[in-house]
Amino acid sequence: MGMTLGEKILCRASNNQKVTAGQIVTANVDLCMSNDGTSHITINMFENQIKHKVIHNPDNTIFIADHFMPSDSVETANIHKIMRDFTNKYQIKFHEGDGVCHQIMIESYVQPGTLVAGADSHTCSYGALGAFGIGVGSTDFLYAMVTGTTWLMVPESIKIKLKGNLKKGVFARDLMLSIIGEIGANGANYKIMEFSGEAVDNFSMNDRIVLCNLAIEAGAKTGLMEPNQVVEDYLKNNRTDYREGVYLKADEDGVYCKELSYNLDEIVPVIARPHCIDDVVPVSECEGIKFHQGFIGSCSNGRIEELRVAASILKGKKVAKDVRLIITPASNKVYLQALKEGLINILSEAGAMIMNPNCSVCWGSCQGVIGENEVLLSTGTRNFKGRCGPASSKVYLSSAATVAASAIRGEICDPREVL
Amino acid sequence: MGMTLGEKILCRASNNQKVTAGQIVTANVDLCMSNDGTSHITINMFENQIKHKVIHNPDNTIFIADHFMPSDSVETANIHKIMRDFTNKYQIKFHEGDGVCHQIMIESYVQPGTLVAGADSHTCSYGALGAFGIGVGSTDFLYAMVTGTTWLMVPESIKIKLKGNLKKGVFARDLMLSIIGEIGANGANYKIMEFSGEAVDNFSMNDRIVLCNLAIEAGAKTGLMEPNQVVEDYLKNNRTDYREGVYLKADEDGVYCKELSYNLDEIVPVIARPHCIDDVVPVSECEGIKFHQGFIGSCSNGRIEELRVAASILKGKKVAKDVRLIITPASNKVYLQALKEGLINILSEAGAMIMNPNCSVCWGSCQGVIGENEVLLSTGTRNFKGRCGPASSKVYLSSAATVAASAIRGEICDPREVL
Repeated sequence: MGMTLGEKILCRASNNQKVTAGQIVTANVDLCMSNDGTSHITINMFENQIKHKVIHNPDNTIFIADHFMPSDSVETANIHKIMRDFTNKYQIKFHEGDGVCHQIMIESYVQPGTLVAGADSHTCSYGALGAFGIGVGSTDFLYAMVTGTTWLMVPESIKIKLKGNLKKGVFARDLMLSIIGEIGANGANYKIMEFSGEAVDNFSMNDRIVLCNLAIEAGAKTGLMEPNQVVEDYLKNNRTDYREGVYLKADEDGVYCKELSYNLDEIVPVIARPHCIDDVVPVSECEGIKFHQGFIGSCSNGRIEELRVAASILKGKKVAKDVRLIITPASNKVYLQALKEGLINILSEAGAMIMNPNCSVCWGSCQGVIGENEVLLSTGTRNFKGRCGPASSKVYLSSAATVAASAIRGEICDPREVL
Repeated sequence: MGMTLGEKILCRASNNQKVTAGQIVTANVDLCMSNDGTSHITINMFENQIKHKVIHNPDNTIFIADHFMPSDSVETANIHKIMRDFTNKYQIKFHEGDGVCHQIMIESYVQPGTLVAGADSHTCSYGALGAFGIGVGSTDFLYAMVTGTTWLMVPESIKIKLKGNLKKGVFARDLMLSIIGEIGANGANYKIMEFSGEAVDNFSMNDRIVLCNLAIEAGAKTGLMEPNQVVEDYLKNNRTDYREGVYLKADEDGVYCKELSYNLDEIVPVIARPHCIDDVVPVSECEGIKFHQGFIGSCSNGRIEELRVAASILKGKKVAKDVRLIITPASNKVYLQALKEGLINILSEAGAMIMNPNCSVCWGSCQGVIGENEVLLSTGTRNFKGRCGPASSKVYLSSAATVAASAIRGEICDPREVL
């Protein structure tokens, strides 16, 4: 019996000849990433609770401030200061204000075939590069940072076969929300969602990231795709220190606990309704719903491809009077590219508020928080009750195109009507 | 005996033939402006404490959300919602995310010769247009909004005669900080600071605003300059509804309680040291002081002229590793102009974080708050203890040029060294 893609990576990381789902392995962690959500907790444990104060590999340890950026209170300013002082002291890499952690990691650090421990649930995004990203808590992160290893039970894999092509106005975001809608928010609990099939060959890096990024929202341990030429080209274009990665592939006879198939031609623009990400319906069922704020951004949907789509829809138009539209590029690289292409100008002239690259409205605790009974239409990662405002507020999740088109209309509408 | 410029405006506003300092007048208020610092307090009083629920002139009443923009918490999101609902209900103008209130007022509403009641201390900025701007509390604002009038004691005027020219690397900001340094933070308590003299003829609108804006920091009731061709040109260029203003001038024999003279040739780049705005010294005395964050923005120094200077210094350079530089255009108009001129690109490539137009770091309670013992070098309006962080933090105030040059160096330096 062969191995799945995830098993292949864990096999390599744990120096085994073969691993099988259900087996517990101790694996070498290639990269450790922690952001300002929990870094101060890890640092506090490191400084005050453990005796052996060693960072296993400072060069492969990356701290990123993105959740409260710039700091919105004395409390968060102090968290950043703790991160700054700690990373200086131990010569750890530190990014501050460069963008959302996962986008920074994908642009600058993650290599195919590696295992990455990130103290953030959407670490699963790195599957887009063919890397095994696991979201860990601050304690597990501490362990990985100090020992360079982590332990985990090898997850079972679900094979998700994709064929066909997304139609105009339909995006990877719609596909992934559709998949989660079908399998449910617990549908892939502790499984690997391995995306494969002919359609994957046509995916851009953005599409790949969008799919892997939301794997956690179906409960998955991670999302994965075999690295391909798109990945190689991306790395060559984005890394000044480009080096060849380990391009692992799933064995033909790998064992999967489940197989799912989707024909992309059949996917339509969808919306995840409040307050569950798996309450997914075609946009048409939400048509006409009023909302107060739109958001385009996040590790899920804040890349240049999304800003291009938004700009193509908003060009020469105006955001409706009763809607605020907040647009937050996922990284400085994205922001600079958008500036270069004139997108920021277009979006700003349409009435969007352009924020500095950071987690912004998706995180819902620093920028663009919504008020009592207000409704948000968002490309963020989550829509649970109270995610971006008080318990009375509501979050609908959709593609960037749907947010942009709806922001002009002032109510939710199908982006295909304007594209 | 003639009248000063301030007396002329109050004379007109109170329908008198003549007013004299010390006299109490009831005056018609031409514009009422309130921001998200206190609007919700005014609205609460309006809705729950007064019986006669009338807005005297909704068309001349402007609410602006700029202090917590976008909202950083459920509390501030609800303040914005209260403002939104109230302005909708009473057909009051509402700006949300368009920029700092005073910049919006100057760009779009304030007319020469008028009296403006603004629920914000820096309402004195409107003196740049030859308007009498008074900062009022939420209760006085309520009274003005409901009755269209306010009462005030006609202030005495200080004549500040300016001659000569600012040298390269020296800005209106340095001049005004120098004046405050000399007369002290209480040096103009309840007086009008009337700027005049040949040098005023050479001032740009930005220079005019910079001087009047900080009048309150010397305790003045307001700052004033006679409107001139620069003002008329500005209004023609910025107002789609341009109409001729009332260009009042001080009488030759107006009575001033004090006269001060400054030769601009003698002004050097200065810094107001923590924690008093009147602790002003030449930049040279602060040379080498390390700081953690730089800020260019605010109603005082966030206009296009300042961004141009910053960009000219930062072009092709990088912000020092241990410094964060936050740049916040004062309005969307400024932001769009900066985009058009390529300044945002230059500043961003240099490593600055570009924020959405709002009060930002100056307000110190929502964006770019600094941490324990951290030092901020800022173009903001104030540097009192705890303004932008905890009591242990420090704020130095300077020109945009000094912030930009120092951000590259990583420590405070004289901008003339790089200009």
